Amino acid sequence: MTVKLGIIGYGGMGEWHHRNTTGIKDLKILAAYDIDAERVALAKKNALELKRDSEFTGFDSLSSILKDNRLNTVLVATPNDTHKDLCLAAIHAGKNVICEKPATLSVQELDEIIAAAKEKKVLFTVHQNRRWDQDYQKVKKSIEQGYLGKVFSIDTKLHGGGGIIHGWRAQKEHGGGMILDWGVHIIDQILDMIPNKIKTVYCQTLSILNPGVDDFFKLLITFEGGVVAQVEVGTFCLRGSFRTWHTCGDKGGLTLTLDYQGLSGGITRVRQFNNKWESKIIETYAGPTRTFAPLSPDQVEELSLPEVNPNWNEFYENVDVAIAGKSELIIKPYQVRRVIKVMDACFKSSETGAAVIFDE
Amino acid sequence: MTVKLGIIGYGGMGEWHHRNTTGIKDLKILAAYDIDAERVALAKKNALELKRDSEFTGFDSLSSILKDNRLNTVLVATPNDTHKDLCLAAIHAGKNVICEKPATLSVQELDEIIAAAKEKKVLFTVHQNRRWDQDYQKVKKSIEQGYLGKVFSIDTKLHGGGGIIHGWRAQKEHGGGMILDWGVHIIDQILDMIPNKIKTVYCQTLSILNPGVDDFFKLLITFEGGVVAQVEVGTFCLRGSFRTWHTCGDKGGLTLTLDYQGLSGGITRVRQFNNKWESKIIETYAGPTRTFAPLSPDQVEELSLPEVNPNWNEFYENVDVAIAGKSELIIKPYQVRRVIKVMDACFKSSETGAAVIFDE
Repeated sequence: MTVKLGIIGYGGMGEWHHRNTTGIKDLKILAAYDIDAERVALAKKNALELKRDSEFTGFDSLSSILKDNRLNTVLVATPNDTHKDLCLAAIHAGKNVICEKPATLSVQELDEIIAAAKEKKVLFTVHQNRRWDQDYQKVKKSIEQGYLGKVFSIDTKLHGGGGIIHGWRAQKEHGGGMILDWGVHIIDQILDMIPNKIKTVYCQTLSILNPGVDDFFKLLITFEGGVVAQVEVGTFCLRGSFRTWHTCGDKGGLTLTLDYQGLSGGITRVRQFNNKWESKIIETYAGPTRTFAPLSPDQVEELSLPEVNPNWNEFYENVDVAIAGKSELIIKPYQVRRVIKVMDACFKSSETGAAVIFDE
Repeated sequence: MTVKLGIIGYGGMGEWHHRNTTGIKDLKILAAYDIDAERVALAKKNALELKRDSEFTGFDSLSSILKDNRLNTVLVATPNDTHKDLCLAAIHAGKNVICEKPATLSVQELDEIIAAAKEKKVLFTVHQNRRWDQDYQKVKKSIEQGYLGKVFSIDTKLHGGGGIIHGWRAQKEHGGGMILDWGVHIIDQILDMIPNKIKTVYCQTLSILNPGVDDFFKLLITFEGGVVAQVEVGTFCLRGSFRTWHTCGDKGGLTLTLDYQGLSGGITRVRQFNNKWESKIIETYAGPTRTFAPLSPDQVEELSLPEVNPNWNEFYENVDVAIAGKSELIIKPYQVRRVIKVMDACFKSSETGAAVIFDE
């Protein structure tokens, strides 16, 4: 089978899909529609330049792209507040739908889409592309391989120094802000790693340099079984690395730092715990300590982060086989729903100052 | 004037005070009492070895040390659950009281002590010695000097790899666990830096390797005016540095890492924000990004962390002049009360999963 795709919304991400999928065999990008005629012209120019899909058509209306019978699938890559209506229109036109993240601005909106897709027997998935990030896959594999023992804490941060959020992402009415832009990725990653039921969601958002939207947030998710995940995202946290992970289990710990130049980190496992009363307080550069005294080198074992080879092409390859009914979707609607439910809770928690109690 | 001190409880910290105060002019340590006769013998041996205070007396009962009229002050350095009764006994005997941290296990207990000290017109203070830590003072000075602009986020972590908590600090009934052992310091540092009123306290404690007590916790304190402070303490977070700080303001950011070998970090201030729409998504090692694209070197200014010269002797020197009525206490009872109120809220929050709303 082949995914025969039309792109709705040829902005930054619409163009990105067009330009970054040339190596995928079972994907043809046959059409694009944008409300801005210049963007449609750019799509046609790119199609020529990329020497692919010579039958590429630029459309000037939603109804015309949805009537294109060559297309079995559309990608919705428009501002967040328009996703719901566009997804529903595409589903009603009988198309499978890939939606950019976040799929919708509320669980209610998503449920309408899921119900419509079910009724029309079409496939609905969301481009949660950060599942293929190398940093995330290394952390996930470390947990799965049991290197850390029983994991109790995940801490991950995303920092940028630029401050300014670009375009409609800085506008609340279009679904802007960092919870919806990046929180959606990070929450998805965490829920994909930790199978436990969610107990509580506590979040504080701030608006530092971009009035009206959250450009900084701290989020704590507690899970059943004593697992705590913590997320911090800031568009103006100078001196932070792009992305960091610090994950602790009862057998060891992992750190990972990802910046613009590369990725570093490792795993430290314990061979032997301290198990006797240390009668003397130890003086260190960091002050007197007993509980926090350093372990001796022979008590620990150092491991490299595991090798992973994520290939983002898998996203479209999976859509292709899922359309053919030969595989489950990787990004499943119920997973998307759970992420959006957590994001809903983030906004509610930040507004009220209260933790949102989950009942899963 | 001179602080004429008797030590009640000659364990790790009692001995530490004895051995670490030889350079303080206006302090005489004249006596010690411990329920363990061997510890009293050690105190006498140390007094000789340290060649100080030749008139040193080891006592075998609380009533006898409190009757020693040479003493104007006692240090209570016993397990946490005994502080209240011992402080009250010392106050009723007319002594000024220095109590090891945490002063008490609840605000109610502390209020009894504060009321008694007021009635007996004696001084009461708490050994919050981490106010003199170099890392903390560098962060505080950076904020005070305005290097970061308006601070909106403080993140600080304390990690150890040993896992095991020693002695009574691993026993709940003696006031063990990390909130009371180290939380008390870190909360004190944060409240001393951020003058704003507290809005909410949210905390999750875990018990990983030390049954019955919190040996890991995550804490979020929100303040009026949009400031969020986050604390993480773990006795078994391998691969963490001893202590880290990441503080963000609207003009710049600070990082500081303190480990057993030394201290590093710096301040990055912004000269010029990005202020235009970047039409292209930038591909970095960390993936495609626009909002999180790196700043160019000419947009930022790098500063060293400010010089500080904390001298812990100041703690006793301050007690001395405060007894003489010539100065305020550095560690004020109302500050201690606020820290204990936050710790109370930590336990309540962790138990219920709810944020505790403050009304200050």
